[in-house]
Amino acid sequence: MGIPEPTLRRLPLYYRIALEEKESGEENISCTVIANKLELIPILVRKDLQQTGIIGRPKTGYILDELIQVLEKTLDYKNNKKAILVGVGNLGKALTNYPGFKQCGLSIAGLIDSDEKKVGDVINGLTICTPADIKKEMRRTRARIGIITTPASSAQDAADMLVGAGVEAIWNFAPIRLSLPDTIVIENVNFSVSLSVLNSRLLLKVK
Amino acid sequence: MGIPEPTLRRLPLYYRIALEEKESGEENISCTVIANKLELIPILVRKDLQQTGIIGRPKTGYILDELIQVLEKTLDYKNNKKAILVGVGNLGKALTNYPGFKQCGLSIAGLIDSDEKKVGDVINGLTICTPADIKKEMRRTRARIGIITTPASSAQDAADMLVGAGVEAIWNFAPIRLSLPDTIVIENVNFSVSLSVLNSRLLLKVK
Repeated sequence: MGIPEPTLRRLPLYYRIALEEKESGEENISCTVIANKLELIPILVRKDLQQTGIIGRPKTGYILDELIQVLEKTLDYKNNKKAILVGVGNLGKALTNYPGFKQCGLSIAGLIDSDEKKVGDVINGLTICTPADIKKEMRRTRARIGIITTPASSAQDAADMLVGAGVEAIWNFAPIRLSLPDTIVIENVNFSVSLSVLNSRLLLKVK
Repeated sequence: MGIPEPTLRRLPLYYRIALEEKESGEENISCTVIANKLELIPILVRKDLQQTGIIGRPKTGYILDELIQVLEKTLDYKNNKKAILVGVGNLGKALTNYPGFKQCGLSIAGLIDSDEKKVGDVINGLTICTPADIKKEMRRTRARIGIITTPASSAQDAADMLVGAGVEAIWNFAPIRLSLPDTIVIENVNFSVSLSVLNSRLLLKVK
């Protein structure tokens, strides 16, 4: 029983707003407030939140503490999962230093790079290891997720290595479609897709 | 008259497959082939492609050259647009060096950073300038797009500066909701959203 992906992509946005409202001293929040902040329609927000099982009250809406808890559970934010990142270039370093992942239940716990000049370097407290160390790193970190930030040309090799070492999910930032066993969860981050959306919005605006 | 966003997010994926098939010597492609490669249903691919105005033929499908051309036009890939990037940290450097944007009609043409130690450094042929140079850089590059890769805490300042200098669109990589005039096109890249999708898929799998 899964939550549909479009809903799943909106829930983290609701979560961020819930945290902001809580910080600014609010105790309750309505679908309308959330919807306005995100430029969505309130009925969509209500339907999305129904999927998490939370029940709102007429007029007051949701209790913020309850909403935050329910979203953390639905999005599995409290269950800290370890990841190993392969490809410590600029993007790999940016992700390793990114402060927002811990809140979402992810710690990058190991770094792998095939460039011998990088091996031994320390980024955010983590020492870069060679691909030969992947299994040792998996045992040490108990990682379940592999993050790929290599160039496109070496991303499939990185994926094969991670799958061989036992990861259950791959978060792929390389601009290539990976060939993976059906049992592996895959999520692609494709900058070109996001850029294309910006492009066509800009095009429509100008016309 | 816009193409719905979910369609817009899939068209770049079809484009990549069309290029791959063309490179491997094919002349035609069917919705079923595209759908299988992306694990989508063929009828969805057909409906998406209808929005671009292209007409497929029974059995053979689309002529690849025609499909590529139509997608490039719809996604505005051939109209090269310049962008100025603000915040030249690891992520900013990664984007500046990213080879895939040119194909999608984007060139990063100017770099701005408020850190005086970085000003004057050259990344991928571009010299980092101070925020005081923003208007000069806008004139020089004729940029229409601003890219924000600053920390969250300075992203709104970066946005205000870019809007003040005349950008029409902002591509925001900082994990914060920006407050912008209605006339500005905004596209957010939120790593936490993508991570949350991965998280919940992993959770569902394990249950």
